[in-house]
Amino acid sequence: MPVIDVHTHIYPPTYVDLLRSRTTVPYVRTFPDVPDSSRLIILPGEDDPSALSTSRGRPIGPEYFDIAQKIAFMDAHKIDVSVISLANPWLDFLPANEAGDTARKINDDVDGLCARYPGRLYAFGTLPLSAPVETVVKEIERLAGLKHIRGVIMGTSGLGNGLDDPALDPIYAALEKHEQLIFLHPHYGLPSSVYGPRANEYGHVLPLALGFPLETTIAVTRMLLSQVWDRFTKLNVLLAHSGGTLPFLAGRIESCINHDGHLKKAGNTEGRRDIWDILKTNIYLDAVIYSNVGLKAAIDASGADRLLFGTDHPFFPPLEEHVGEWHSVSANYSAISSAFKGNEEPAKDVLGNNAIRILKLHP
Amino acid sequence: MPVIDVHTHIYPPTYVDLLRSRTTVPYVRTFPDVPDSSRLIILPGEDDPSALSTSRGRPIGPEYFDIAQKIAFMDAHKIDVSVISLANPWLDFLPANEAGDTARKINDDVDGLCARYPGRLYAFGTLPLSAPVETVVKEIERLAGLKHIRGVIMGTSGLGNGLDDPALDPIYAALEKHEQLIFLHPHYGLPSSVYGPRANEYGHVLPLALGFPLETTIAVTRMLLSQVWDRFTKLNVLLAHSGGTLPFLAGRIESCINHDGHLKKAGNTEGRRDIWDILKTNIYLDAVIYSNVGLKAAIDASGADRLLFGTDHPFFPPLEEHVGEWHSVSANYSAISSAFKGNEEPAKDVLGNNAIRILKLHP
Repeated sequence: MPVIDVHTHIYPPTYVDLLRSRTTVPYVRTFPDVPDSSRLIILPGEDDPSALSTSRGRPIGPEYFDIAQKIAFMDAHKIDVSVISLANPWLDFLPANEAGDTARKINDDVDGLCARYPGRLYAFGTLPLSAPVETVVKEIERLAGLKHIRGVIMGTSGLGNGLDDPALDPIYAALEKHEQLIFLHPHYGLPSSVYGPRANEYGHVLPLALGFPLETTIAVTRMLLSQVWDRFTKLNVLLAHSGGTLPFLAGRIESCINHDGHLKKAGNTEGRRDIWDILKTNIYLDAVIYSNVGLKAAIDASGADRLLFGTDHPFFPPLEEHVGEWHSVSANYSAISSAFKGNEEPAKDVLGNNAIRILKLHP
Repeated sequence: MPVIDVHTHIYPPTYVDLLRSRTTVPYVRTFPDVPDSSRLIILPGEDDPSALSTSRGRPIGPEYFDIAQKIAFMDAHKIDVSVISLANPWLDFLPANEAGDTARKINDDVDGLCARYPGRLYAFGTLPLSAPVETVVKEIERLAGLKHIRGVIMGTSGLGNGLDDPALDPIYAALEKHEQLIFLHPHYGLPSSVYGPRANEYGHVLPLALGFPLETTIAVTRMLLSQVWDRFTKLNVLLAHSGGTLPFLAGRIESCINHDGHLKKAGNTEGRRDIWDILKTNIYLDAVIYSNVGLKAAIDASGADRLLFGTDHPFFPPLEEHVGEWHSVSANYSAISSAFKGNEEPAKDVLGNNAIRILKLHP
């Protein structure tokens, strides 16, 4: 039974060099009060100078950029294949004239890493979204020819105005045409004001536990409202963290659309496909949800044939040293076996078979 | 089999008069371009002068303030008992020196409305949270003596700094002591920037479908992180809209707490009760979720003995005229029968028996 991890990140050497050369978020740097380790600062607000260095970003070691460590992690967790993706914030921050070249270099770098371990690594590519749209479309066409690439990872900002921006249509059209799935992943979270004055006391919990999935939920709902899937009926999107909160809120979203007088009057949603149809036709969900409660809702919403195991490695390592199996990984393994209560076939599908079929892998 | 609606709002006459006397949000007013109806503007940003009048707030008719219409709605939907609550934004906007008197007047008004229909109406009271804390505590003590009051409805702002504010401790202590449940209800949503530049085209969908439940989720997670339930182990909270998204995200929240180096170092969460314990001991969820997917997650998280039927009346009326049963209500009825698949006992509990037991009602 193959186990395939579709949510696992890498900072390839070309990308780490780029982050080390920077002095504003996102960047990698060493703080004078913790000289023995570099820290990776990727979230807005994480470099608040008043915060302790230990709450500024996270330590970055070889597990972030050394592909051999990815393979070692896979071996320790019985993962046969990983579909690696560049970790956030991808290339959103690059000047327009550099983005295209940088994306090509990084995508080639990642494809090359995969080639080193035949049958064990595939990847989602990264788009130069700050470049002109034609450059983005060209990179999508080029990615379709790279041996190990199986889609693209994207954040929620699109070209700067979100994923409901009609200017993205040529990009969605190219992705649909080349059967490249979008792995939609959060990064920006929510404005820090929503966490209140005590947020710093809670470490990274609020932005990570809530900001990330809520950002994803808003982004995908905006796509839905702008009728992306009515225009691109074969565009497939894999949502990180089991859809943020989409499975849980789908009923409320659908009800609010159906009860909105303004929408009805404007005729904006006439003939639209409903959220359940899209959840079962265009949306895939990873199984990175850490409990069988959420996982069962994800299964109910999209179907056991549309869920895909993931780990979020190298994030959420154990706080203790010398732990063999990571708690964050075993929580996701347990959620799957508990959600299916010994029904082995759908559990195997979620663990690996779905990914093989959907992403056309050859493990 | 009694059917009891625990999520149903009223703007009693004293409160409507107050809103009509105001010119900034929240307020009730008549627009020159729609002279035949008053509109209720309660959400931040809803009175954007560039928006169409039809997207400014919502029409307010007698179903908002006439208690006879509440009873008619209950009769039409086979609801035996309603536990009414003042609709948002409650009294958060009042000057400190007026809040205490206004709260007393409104709470007496609401208790009096209940007295008119013996056995059919109970209520959650409203706290004067902008008044000095002693005034709030006094009102809690007074409410405990009112015949039809079974707790208090509260928004997420608390005294202005959220529900994780230690200054709320005397209020939590008084509520715990007098066995008054908090009905925690959203109002402020999220900063409008998160909805992007096209938000106006989507009517109220994004703030209502997402802003509301996400606000609730953030508020309750902040309570959890500030260890409110470690200090007040018998404080009970009923979460609106099936917990916002708490049941779905509980696993991720727990995992993020357990993996946060900063929290661990600070020792802030040592000996804390975990989220599943609190979900099954201190938290109740309403069943206002419009689909069996979300409802099943709510049941999995808190237990069928902790879920309570609700309608959110008078919000989400049908857009068509002359509809007998409201779609928004039948969606919640269907979700319950479908979640329990003909298992009648727990369905009856959610529809009414739980409310009788938890709120000590005498229908």
